Amino acid sequence: MKALWLENRQVSLRELPNLKPAEGEALLEIELAGVCSTDLEMLRGYYPFTGVPGHEFVGNVAAAPGNASWVGKRVVGEINITCGSCRACLNGIKTHCENRTVLGISGRDGVFAERALLPVANLHEIPQGLPSEAAVFTEPLAAALEILEQVHIRPRERVFLAGAGRLGQLIARVLAATGCELLVAARHAEQRCLLEQAGIACVAEEAVPRRWADIAVEATGSPSGFAMARQALRPRGILVLKSTYAGDLSLNMSSLVVDEITLVGSRCGPFEPALRWLAEGRLDPTALISGRYPLERGVEALAQSGKPGIFKILIQP
Amino acid sequence: MKALWLENRQVSLRELPNLKPAEGEALLEIELAGVCSTDLEMLRGYYPFTGVPGHEFVGNVAAAPGNASWVGKRVVGEINITCGSCRACLNGIKTHCENRTVLGISGRDGVFAERALLPVANLHEIPQGLPSEAAVFTEPLAAALEILEQVHIRPRERVFLAGAGRLGQLIARVLAATGCELLVAARHAEQRCLLEQAGIACVAEEAVPRRWADIAVEATGSPSGFAMARQALRPRGILVLKSTYAGDLSLNMSSLVVDEITLVGSRCGPFEPALRWLAEGRLDPTALISGRYPLERGVEALAQSGKPGIFKILIQP
Repeated sequence: MKALWLENRQVSLRELPNLKPAEGEALLEIELAGVCSTDLEMLRGYYPFTGVPGHEFVGNVAAAPGNASWVGKRVVGEINITCGSCRACLNGIKTHCENRTVLGISGRDGVFAERALLPVANLHEIPQGLPSEAAVFTEPLAAALEILEQVHIRPRERVFLAGAGRLGQLIARVLAATGCELLVAARHAEQRCLLEQAGIACVAEEAVPRRWADIAVEATGSPSGFAMARQALRPRGILVLKSTYAGDLSLNMSSLVVDEITLVGSRCGPFEPALRWLAEGRLDPTALISGRYPLERGVEALAQSGKPGIFKILIQP
Repeated sequence: MKALWLENRQVSLRELPNLKPAEGEALLEIELAGVCSTDLEMLRGYYPFTGVPGHEFVGNVAAAPGNASWVGKRVVGEINITCGSCRACLNGIKTHCENRTVLGISGRDGVFAERALLPVANLHEIPQGLPSEAAVFTEPLAAALEILEQVHIRPRERVFLAGAGRLGQLIARVLAATGCELLVAARHAEQRCLLEQAGIACVAEEAVPRRWADIAVEATGSPSGFAMARQALRPRGILVLKSTYAGDLSLNMSSLVVDEITLVGSRCGPFEPALRWLAEGRLDPTALISGRYPLERGVEALAQSGKPGIFKILIQP
């Protein structure tokens, strides 16, 4: 089968052997895949992965040994493949399984391919009426919803979001749903335009109010976003970290102590409410689609994803 | 009056003009003062303060214009002097007053002196039976108790404390009071000895278990403590930061995101429960007293405080 292949920070199109699902696994025909900033960061060396990248997808179950009822279903899938027996799994926090592999990120080939394998336990069937173009946003929307799982955001609170890219746009809509007073720093005109269409207030990066927010969310995908979010935050405020990127950040820890700031790292979120939000039409993510590429042009798709003002690039095998 | 004077990271003994309390202020005759790591960090340039350092004290009220009933009382005092009208004050988080001065740290002379001034609103009378040698620990014990104000520590949780110095020893006793499973990394034999006397389990710094703790507390007072506390913490754990020191720390933020770690900055705490704990004899801090110096030898007292294995040095004017 055709697939993109990542090795030594280089990505290329390859012909790979056909996949054979084991008992408990599903063989998925990939219908749509989405490019995420994490994919681009892996090209920059964020994580030393060799294999097929890609973890956002809609697929159709072509085979599922031992689970025939799944065959033919249109699905999305959770990206952490867990052991079920470590301390994290036994405590119900499966996304932190100590022995996990992660689809297209760590120890397991991903979805920028004609087909992929995933345990049936990771699958969620897509409701009938939900278009694949929307369902492909389930994974990043779940990551945005994770913020609400971790932090109680009250209607009277002021919330600042740094970053209005492909993940930031989803986060903005999730934060807006709480009814809080929301302000989003957006770098590009295209970003501001999309937010304004959704009725969300924007501010230029250089005009972010200082010590204004009760809660700040950093989703710029780059080290510079931290200082912006930190400065926007009041003492005793909460700063949610959503960005993963290569390299370290130099930080004044004493300032976090003096202002008694709480930092909250936030990663993968719950698929069930994400699919439900999409099915209920609580937000329409398809306005974020900036382009579609066939798998054969996947290398070009990744390059395009890294350009300013580009939101979601979809890859179609 | 005699006082220590900090200027350009140098401390010296000086003769200063006598103090005159304004309406609402108390003139305090300092009976005992304690040396804190923050005092030592100011000598290293943590904060550009010029004036009389020192913020831990027991004093006797010599005058209090407009508040005669305070005269003659033996007191401790909260160190943040607040405006009462800013957003933080109006929201009841007075230690974060935007216009605050801080006794001996920022904008206000401290207590390494024969006398000091503090608003009557900051004072707490010391209960009759509580010796001044114990009461002088009220401020750092309050800082330790702040952890329990911020984080719910459950009996079945594993808690790791990095650092067993003068503040770490108090924190260890406060954490132990929760009935959690507590492990403290102590660098020096003297530190381990004091902890073992209090029935608290110790571990050498090089033998800290990895990903063990639900909650970790960093109280080493130095940048190296962060990595130790971080490594001891499980995914989704809480890392409480108590250390303030000069300079920045280089940090892998993505690792906080991937492991969904929560960092909690923690500074000044509540005086009322601290005084109550001391009065009830819930802990005896006097075992931490490593030496007493007259004010005239205050420069020597600060130098002594910086030595390994030294806990609390008291200064007696």
